[in-house]
Amino acid sequence: MIQFIEPIEWKDDVLYVLNQLKLPEVTEINPKRTIEEVFQAIKDMELRGAPLIGIAAAYGMYLGIKDLTTNDHDEFMEVMRQNGDFLAKSRPTAINLFWAIQRMIDKASSLAGESLENKKRILLAEARKIHLEDEEINKKIGINLLSLLEDGMTILTHCNAGSLATSKYGTATSPLYLAREKGMNIKVYVDETRPYLQGARLTAYELSQVGIDVTLICDNMAGFVMSQGKVDAVITGADRVAANGDTANKIGTMTLAVLAKQFGIPFYIAAPTSTIDLSTPSGSEIPIEERSHLEVTDWYGKKIAPDGIKVYNPAFDVTPHDLITAIVTEKGIVYPNYEMNLKKLIEDK
Amino acid sequence: MIQFIEPIEWKDDVLYVLNQLKLPEVTEINPKRTIEEVFQAIKDMELRGAPLIGIAAAYGMYLGIKDLTTNDHDEFMEVMRQNGDFLAKSRPTAINLFWAIQRMIDKASSLAGESLENKKRILLAEARKIHLEDEEINKKIGINLLSLLEDGMTILTHCNAGSLATSKYGTATSPLYLAREKGMNIKVYVDETRPYLQGARLTAYELSQVGIDVTLICDNMAGFVMSQGKVDAVITGADRVAANGDTANKIGTMTLAVLAKQFGIPFYIAAPTSTIDLSTPSGSEIPIEERSHLEVTDWYGKKIAPDGIKVYNPAFDVTPHDLITAIVTEKGIVYPNYEMNLKKLIEDK
Repeated sequence: MIQFIEPIEWKDDVLYVLNQLKLPEVTEINPKRTIEEVFQAIKDMELRGAPLIGIAAAYGMYLGIKDLTTNDHDEFMEVMRQNGDFLAKSRPTAINLFWAIQRMIDKASSLAGESLENKKRILLAEARKIHLEDEEINKKIGINLLSLLEDGMTILTHCNAGSLATSKYGTATSPLYLAREKGMNIKVYVDETRPYLQGARLTAYELSQVGIDVTLICDNMAGFVMSQGKVDAVITGADRVAANGDTANKIGTMTLAVLAKQFGIPFYIAAPTSTIDLSTPSGSEIPIEERSHLEVTDWYGKKIAPDGIKVYNPAFDVTPHDLITAIVTEKGIVYPNYEMNLKKLIEDK
Repeated sequence: MIQFIEPIEWKDDVLYVLNQLKLPEVTEINPKRTIEEVFQAIKDMELRGAPLIGIAAAYGMYLGIKDLTTNDHDEFMEVMRQNGDFLAKSRPTAINLFWAIQRMIDKASSLAGESLENKKRILLAEARKIHLEDEEINKKIGINLLSLLEDGMTILTHCNAGSLATSKYGTATSPLYLAREKGMNIKVYVDETRPYLQGARLTAYELSQVGIDVTLICDNMAGFVMSQGKVDAVITGADRVAANGDTANKIGTMTLAVLAKQFGIPFYIAAPTSTIDLSTPSGSEIPIEERSHLEVTDWYGKKIAPDGIKVYNPAFDVTPHDLITAIVTEKGIVYPNYEMNLKKLIEDK
């Protein structure tokens, strides 16, 4: 059995967060006891990855009401909604954040008749359920993805859609872990993923920890590796899938999709259905978070660009649906026409 | 008039090299007094850029014979050839290196009747000529490239094909400097260019020094910037252009060409004719240098990837000729069919 790295742990009303800013050099676990601390951890990317952001937000929503003393349900719901609005501002692109917040608010709505203590207990249980469900979802995504792969293949992945972005199997990494469990020989190239280096620091770390054959490259090398015929499939995660299949994911993902098309390589998105947002018609309606120029110009205190240089640092890009071979969810593999098939998948309970 | 940064200076039989490994934080100039020191400076990338490597190699060839005492011409030529073989091993991809070495050897060959002192004097003059010619060539490349651009355009460039890679105007940067001199408003995006960060450390530095409007992005952001309609043309340098137009340049260049095609943006190569190698039929025959994994895993002493991780670090890639809109040289603009038109350009004295 694979020993997965746990990016968060819930114990005695405290969310323990593995600080991903310091990996792989330093393993630092920080306790989060308030919704404000959870907000800051998401914003600063101490934890990251769309599914994990959702899970942490669910716990955050519980932390936001755990010391509440009101017996008035309307007042309770008002706090829930305010907390939801607050937490939603931590990262604008990942839909799982809003999905988890909404799920906690919907659950609270249904608890009008319950005592305050029961409300708290049930909401904590809901957060834990979101957490546990994620593991099961990831495994199913992996099983579905693995059906598209063959022994001996080499996969290229970007950023980190692994254990550290979710729980246990990860999304894009799930077929890689499952293949490892089955003794299959799947090789992996991982882009370092500037500026935050999720590929170099996190994916290379977690895959190599369990003995998967992983090779690190810089983002600008992926095209060359593909041109040499060394890549059989590209698999990435997703921060939000629009109704037409356009997919927001870590900056650089769209470039990989364009390159995959150029070199005739299948390009797969691994996404739990919680990532699919039918209320967003297409990619052009997905807000793209811009982050600090310091992420680009400063490396661990070392300046790598001239003082005062202008920087553009979008954290995500949108891959047009026509560049995506398939979107693989826990409920099945979705092929084009995405508009039709995503709707069918979501509505098919 | 623009005050260009001088990457090398020749004075009193010493080649003074601006250490590009330490820019932009530290300005360190190191004297090179022997061919071995020139070899090491090229290998370690203390100086880099195809045209500059050629110029430095020419001075290196002079340094290799300046203390020679033989009056025998065959012996002199034997040393020249041995030195050439040695210096050629410093970097395998840039053709200008071999071109400059061969030019110095050819010049030496023609000096059989000269005294030893004359041979040395004439060979130094030849190295200086190569150096001075480069400035003129770059300006002509810039004039030709500028004829393809319009006021108000935004250019994306990669790596550093600027003053620091050549002398004065650079190649890919030449139209940008010329536009600046004319008071035109040309904006620039520059990729940081991992792993060595030539874009962030060198191009952003030299362009911003003279007041050009430059914005730094990570390599994986170029596609997104193009998808937003923010780029009117891509211009890069070249390390070697094969007879069919396939072009080796800094890793990541080919990806930009694929993206430019996807988004309908012209993709130009700026290349002195010394970069064109008619003896290499196509890109598949160009040797691609692989460099140390430490360039990827270690940043200024800070480890950014797990210990012992496998790394692939190709320094160049090959852009297929069919993705190149035009190859712009000092002798004119070359359009497809490259096979025919490059041959015509080179043979047309």
